[in-house]
Amino acid sequence: MSAFEIRDPSSIGVAFLGVGRIGRTHLQTLAGIGAARIVVVADLDPAEAERGREIGRAERSTSDAVDAITDPKVDAVIIVTPTSTHATLIEAALRAGKAIWSEKPIALDLDETARVVALWRETGLPVQMGFMRRFDPGYVRARRLIESGELGRIEQFRAYSRDTYMPDAKFIRDSGGSFLDMSVHDFDLARFLVGEVEEVSAWGANIVDPRFEAGGDVDTAVTMLRFRNGALGVVEMSRHSEWGYDIRTEVAGSLGKVVIEADRKTPLTWSRRFGFEADHHENFPDRFEVAYRAEFEAFFRTLADGGTPTPGPEDALETLRLALAAKQSWQERRPVRVDEVTAEVPT
Amino acid sequence: MSAFEIRDPSSIGVAFLGVGRIGRTHLQTLAGIGAARIVVVADLDPAEAERGREIGRAERSTSDAVDAITDPKVDAVIIVTPTSTHATLIEAALRAGKAIWSEKPIALDLDETARVVALWRETGLPVQMGFMRRFDPGYVRARRLIESGELGRIEQFRAYSRDTYMPDAKFIRDSGGSFLDMSVHDFDLARFLVGEVEEVSAWGANIVDPRFEAGGDVDTAVTMLRFRNGALGVVEMSRHSEWGYDIRTEVAGSLGKVVIEADRKTPLTWSRRFGFEADHHENFPDRFEVAYRAEFEAFFRTLADGGTPTPGPEDALETLRLALAAKQSWQERRPVRVDEVTAEVPT
Amino acid sequence: MSAFEIRDPSSIGVAFLGVGRIGRTHLQTLAGIGAARIVVVADLDPAEAERGREIGRAERSTSDAVDAITDPKVDAVIIVTPTSTHATLIEAALRAGKAIWSEKPIALDLDETARVVALWRETGLPVQMGFMRRFDPGYVRARRLIESGELGRIEQFRAYSRDTYMPDAKFIRDSGGSFLDMSVHDFDLARFLVGEVEEVSAWGANIVDPRFEAGGDVDTAVTMLRFRNGALGVVEMSRHSEWGYDIRTEVAGSLGKVVIEADRKTPLTWSRRFGFEADHHENFPDRFEVAYRAEFEAFFRTLADGGTPTPGPEDALETLRLALAAKQSWQERRPVRVDEVTAEVPT
Amino acid sequence: MSAFEIRDPSSIGVAFLGVGRIGRTHLQTLAGIGAARIVVVADLDPAEAERGREIGRAERSTSDAVDAITDPKVDAVIIVTPTSTHATLIEAALRAGKAIWSEKPIALDLDETARVVALWRETGLPVQMGFMRRFDPGYVRARRLIESGELGRIEQFRAYSRDTYMPDAKFIRDSGGSFLDMSVHDFDLARFLVGEVEEVSAWGANIVDPRFEAGGDVDTAVTMLRFRNGALGVVEMSRHSEWGYDIRTEVAGSLGKVVIEADRKTPLTWSRRFGFEADHHENFPDRFEVAYRAEFEAFFRTLADGGTPTPGPEDALETLRLALAAKQSWQERRPVRVDEVTAEVPT
Repeated sequence: MSAFEIRDPSSIGVAFLGVGRIGRTHLQTLAGIGAARIVVVADLDPAEAERGREIGRAERSTSDAVDAITDPKVDAVIIVTPTSTHATLIEAALRAGKAIWSEKPIALDLDETARVVALWRETGLPVQMGFMRRFDPGYVRARRLIESGELGRIEQFRAYSRDTYMPDAKFIRDSGGSFLDMSVHDFDLARFLVGEVEEVSAWGANIVDPRFEAGGDVDTAVTMLRFRNGALGVVEMSRHSEWGYDIRTEVAGSLGKVVIEADRKTPLTWSRRFGFEADHHENFPDRFEVAYRAEFEAFFRTLADGGTPTPGPEDALETLRLALAAKQSWQERRPVRVDEVTAEVPT
Repeated sequence: MSAFEIRDPSSIGVAFLGVGRIGRTHLQTLAGIGAARIVVVADLDPAEAERGREIGRAERSTSDAVDAITDPKVDAVIIVTPTSTHATLIEAALRAGKAIWSEKPIALDLDETARVVALWRETGLPVQMGFMRRFDPGYVRARRLIESGELGRIEQFRAYSRDTYMPDAKFIRDSGGSFLDMSVHDFDLARFLVGEVEEVSAWGANIVDPRFEAGGDVDTAVTMLRFRNGALGVVEMSRHSEWGYDIRTEVAGSLGKVVIEADRKTPLTWSRRFGFEADHHENFPDRFEVAYRAEFEAFFRTLADGGTPTPGPEDALETLRLALAAKQSWQERRPVRVDEVTAEVPT
Repeated sequence: MSAFEIRDPSSIGVAFLGVGRIGRTHLQTLAGIGAARIVVVADLDPAEAERGREIGRAERSTSDAVDAITDPKVDAVIIVTPTSTHATLIEAALRAGKAIWSEKPIALDLDETARVVALWRETGLPVQMGFMRRFDPGYVRARRLIESGELGRIEQFRAYSRDTYMPDAKFIRDSGGSFLDMSVHDFDLARFLVGEVEEVSAWGANIVDPRFEAGGDVDTAVTMLRFRNGALGVVEMSRHSEWGYDIRTEVAGSLGKVVIEADRKTPLTWSRRFGFEADHHENFPDRFEVAYRAEFEAFFRTLADGGTPTPGPEDALETLRLALAAKQSWQERRPVRVDEVTAEVPT
Repeated sequence: MSAFEIRDPSSIGVAFLGVGRIGRTHLQTLAGIGAARIVVVADLDPAEAERGREIGRAERSTSDAVDAITDPKVDAVIIVTPTSTHATLIEAALRAGKAIWSEKPIALDLDETARVVALWRETGLPVQMGFMRRFDPGYVRARRLIESGELGRIEQFRAYSRDTYMPDAKFIRDSGGSFLDMSVHDFDLARFLVGEVEEVSAWGANIVDPRFEAGGDVDTAVTMLRFRNGALGVVEMSRHSEWGYDIRTEVAGSLGKVVIEADRKTPLTWSRRFGFEADHHENFPDRFEVAYRAEFEAFFRTLADGGTPTPGPEDALETLRLALAAKQSWQERRPVRVDEVTAEVPT
C-alpha cells in the first residue's frame, strides 16, 4: 500500500468536484458529516462552484479541477462530474496522492477503466466508487443474511428497475446506453449479493419513447444471468415509470428468500371507498437518501481507520464488464460469456 | 350429560330455521359440508322456506318451526331466525332433545338468557353459539399464541370495528343498541383472547346518523376494559365505514404482540402516479367467509365426535353481561363493574 | 355449435372421473355448488371410486370411466385423472355429447392436443380447461384493469413461481418436465394477461435436487418472453421452496402496474424482538382455494346460461405450444419462435 | 410582534444548550443544516460542552448557559437541557431577545408554563417547541388530508404508543409521570390532527414494572377523549415494548381514514419456513430521524422568512393541560373536563 495517511481523522480536507443536481445533494449530505471538512469546491462554471461553496460551507471555490485536487489542504477528492471526465480526474487525483470517492463508472470503455485500475493498484490509494445501493439498509441486511448462510445455497436472483423520469436526448447519447447507465446498478447488486456472473443473454425493446431507438439504445430490456455458482438470475429494466421510482430485488436460496423493496415512502395509508392507498417514492434521491449518507460516512470512517474502501475500482471494472456483456448480447442476439469481454467491445 | 347421540356421524340430519340473507349464505355453506344433510328448511314465509329448501337441497320445507324441530329425521337444529325468537326456539329444540347451532345472542335480556342457560345445563345437549370470529384463522392463531405463552403476560387489548352499511330504523330499534349488537363481537373476542373483564367505562356519541340518537342509541362509542388479570383494553365502534368493513384487533403482552387485520381483500396491488392501492373487504360476509364455513365444520365434527361444542350458551351469557355493562356505563355515565349486571338492566 | 342443451340448469348431472388427492378436494368443492349434482364417480380403484361417491354424495360409483361418461343422467364430465388419460377421456366425452371440465393439459404432445381440439371444434360442445389461476380474484382484477386500459400500453410481464414440495421420481418422469408441468401456469397467465408470445429464450439449471437432472429435466429455470405486442416478459421457476408456496405476477404498462401476490395467508402479524412476522401459504391448494371454487362455479353457470366456457381447448393448445417452445429453447440453447412449434418437438 | 430580526438568514448564529444523548443527535443534525451556524455549545459539564462543540463544529464551548444565551453572535437558542430547567432558560432567552427552539415541555407545572407563555406573548419572539412528530412525513400528510376535507367529518382518533426501553428510577420520579412524559406526544397529536379536547377519562395499571407504582406512576394506561367537535378518541400507553418502538395513530372520518405507522424499519422481508418477517424500529431516534431533521429545518426556514414558528408555547400549554387532565382523571377515578385544569393540579 501507499504511504497515504490522513493528517487529522476528525477533519479530513475535501476537494469537491462537480456542482450539478446530484452534486448539490451530496454537498448537503457532506455538510452533515462531522469528519469531512470541505476545503474547495470546483466546477467549470464559477457561479456553480461558488454556489457549491456556500452549500458545503467550503473555504473557497474554483473553476479549475486540478487546482482543487492539488490543494495541499486536501486529503480526499470527491468526483461528481460528468461520466466522461471520471477517468481523467481519478488519474489526476491518484497522481496527486489523494484518497478518492467517485461516482460510478470510471469510464464507459473497458480499456480505459482497466488503465485506471492499473494505476490505482500501483498507487495503493484509497478509492471508493459510488454504488450507493450497497449502503442501503435493505441491501446491507440482505448481504449479511446471505453471507451468514441463512438463505442456504443461492438459487435465484432478480432485480427490477424502472426510472420515474426519462433522461434528455444528450444524456441518452452520452450515457453508454440503458445497460451501462441503468441496469448497471442491478448488475452490481447481482455481484454484491450473489457473486460473479459467467454468462448473460439480453433482449431489448423500444416501446416507451422513440428517442432511445434513435440513439441506438433500448428503453425496455431483460437480461438472464448465469452465475458461476450455478444460480440463475434476471435483470429487468424500463426507462420510465408513471407511478414513481420502482426497484425491487430478490434473492432466493435453498433455505430462504429476501426481498428488498421500498414500496411505501410515507408511513401512512389512506382508506377510501373499498380500498386504501400508500405512496411510492418519487425518484432515486428520496429512495436512497439514507444510502447516500451512509456511503459517505463509510468512506470517511474508512479513511480515518486507514482501511481499504469498498466497493473499489475493481468492482467498477467487473460490473462494467457485466454490463458490456449484456449490451453485446442484445446487439449480437446471442448469449455472451462475461469473460469474452476482455477488450473494447463494439458499440 | 344427556343421552344425545348422533345416529350417523357421516350424515347428520339438520332442521334449518330462518331463510333471510345470512340464512341463504349459511345454507350454501352447509351444502358444502359433507356430514350435514339438510332434512327440512323452515321459514314463516313458505316461499322463502321453499327457496331455502332448493339452496340447501333439503327434503322438504315448512312454515312451522316446531314441525321442523320435531322431525324425527332431525339430529341438529340450526337457528338463523330474528334475535327475538332465539330463546324460544332454543328452548323448543332443547326440549326436543336436539343438538343446536344458533346465531348469537340467546336473547338481549339477561334473565331470559340465564333461563335458557339453566335449561341447557339440565339437558346437557350440545349447543354452539354463532360467534364466527372465533373460527377465523387469524383469531384462532392469536389464541394459540397467547395460550402457548408466546406473548408473555397479556397487558393490552384493543378492538376496532366499523360497519360498512348502516342498519335500517327497525333494526336499530330491535337490536338492543350498538353495544349489544355490534361491540358484542369485540367483547366476545376480549373474553376469547384475554379473559374475563372486571370493569368497563364507556362513552358514546351521535355524529354519524341521527336515526341512532332517535332510537335511543349511539352511532360511535369507545369502551375501556379492565380485565381480571390486570390488563387494560379498549373497544372502539362506529356504525358506518365509507371505506368498507374495517375491523382490527390487537393483543399485546410482555413478550410480543399480535394484530389481526384483513385489510386487503384481493391479492393485488395497483400502482399509479406516485402511489399504489389495494382493496378493502366490502362487508362481514366476505371478510368472514372462511370463518362461517369453519364454525359449521367445527359444529358437525364435534357432534360426530361426541364432544361439547364451543362457544356455548355460557359464553353467550357472559358476553351479553359484558355488553350490558358497557351500555349501562354509557347510560349512567360512570364505570360499571361487570358483576353489577346480575339482573335485568334498565334500557 | 352443437345441439348441446342442459336439461335442468339447477341440477346438472355430473360424472366425476379420478379420485386422487386433488380429486377429493374438487369433489368437496363441487358438493358446495348448488347447480352441480354428482351422478357417478369413477376411478380405476373401486375403493377410491366409492370414497369419492361418499364425498360427492353421488348416486353411484364405478371403476369404468366410459360407463360414467355415457350414463344418460350425465350432462357434464369432470376429468381429474392422470395427464396421460386426458386426451382419450375428453374425446370419449365429446363423442358422447357431454360438456367437459378437464384438468390441464389436454396432452403433453402437440399433435395429440391438436387432434382433440379439432374434434372439439367439430362437436361444438362446451369444454373448460382447469387453469384455475384465471379465476383467482387477483388475476381477475388484473385482467379487468388491463382490458379497461388503466395500465396503458403493456410493457413488461413477470411471473415467479416456486413450489413447496418436490414431486416424486415417477411424476418427474411423466410430467413432461418443469416447463410443461410447472411454468405452464405462468405461460398461461402471460397469454391471459398480456397476449400471445412471439419468441422465447430459456435457461435451466440443476441446483436443487439431482433427480430432475437424472430425469432429463431442470429444477430451476428462467425464460424470457417477447410478446407480439412488443412487451418483454420473464418467467422464473424453481421446484422447491423452503418457505412455502411462492408465486408472484407483475404486469407493468405505460400508466400503471399491477402485482398479484398472496404473501400472507392468515390475517395476523406477530411482533417479537425488533421484528414482526406473518405466514406464507403452504401450498397451491390453500393459495387457490377460492379459485378452485370459482372455476367450477363459472363452468356450471356457463352451462346453465348456454355460453361457451373459457379457457377452452384452444387455450390449452396455445399455452402448450408456448411451454414446448421454452423447453426447446432450453434444450437447443437458442431463442425459439413460438410458431416454430408446429408439430411434435424433440424430448 | 417584537423587533426580532435575523441578521444573516443564511448563517443564523446558534447557542446550543445541553449535550446529553439526544443533544448529541441534535448537534449532528444541525451540522447538516446549511443556515445554522453553531456559535457556542453549553453544558454544565465542561467536557460535555467541549465534546458538543466538536460535533457541532462550534466556535466555542462554555459551562455557563447564560453566557451562551447572551453571546452577541447568537440569534437563536436551542434548549435540550433537563425538563426542570426549560422554563428558566426559555425566560432567559426571551429576555435576551433571542429566537428559541426548546424541547417540550416548557414545565410540568401549569402555572409555570402559563407564566412563560405570558412572557412570550409580551416579547413576541419566535419560539418553537420540540413536538417532533408534527414534522414526520406521515403526520404531515395526515394533517393535510384532514384539513383538505378528504376524510370528511372526523369521528374517531386513536393513538397507541409503547416505548422500547424503560426509563431509570430517577427519570420516573422527575418526569411528571407517564401521562405527562409519554402520552403527552399522543395528546399533542390529538390536538394537531383533530382539535381541542373537552373531556378525558383515564385508567392506569401497574403490570409491567413495580418501579412505576413505587414512583406513584402507572406503566400502562388508556385514556378516552371527547373532542369539542364531537369526535371520540382513545390514547393507549405502555412503558415497555419487547418488540421495539411501537406507535400507531389513526384518524377516521365520514369519508375516509388515515393510519400512520412505520412498522417496517428496513426495506427488506425475509421469507423462511412458512412465513416471512420484517424488522421494527428499535427506538424513537431511528423512527423519527427524518422528523428531527425536518423540525430544525422548519425552525431555521421560519426564522429566515420572518414567520411565526409552530408548534409554539401555546401548544405546549394546551397539550400540558390535556395531559394533566388525563392524569387527574386517573388519580381521581372520574372523567375530567379539560377546562377544569386551570391551576396547579395535585400530584
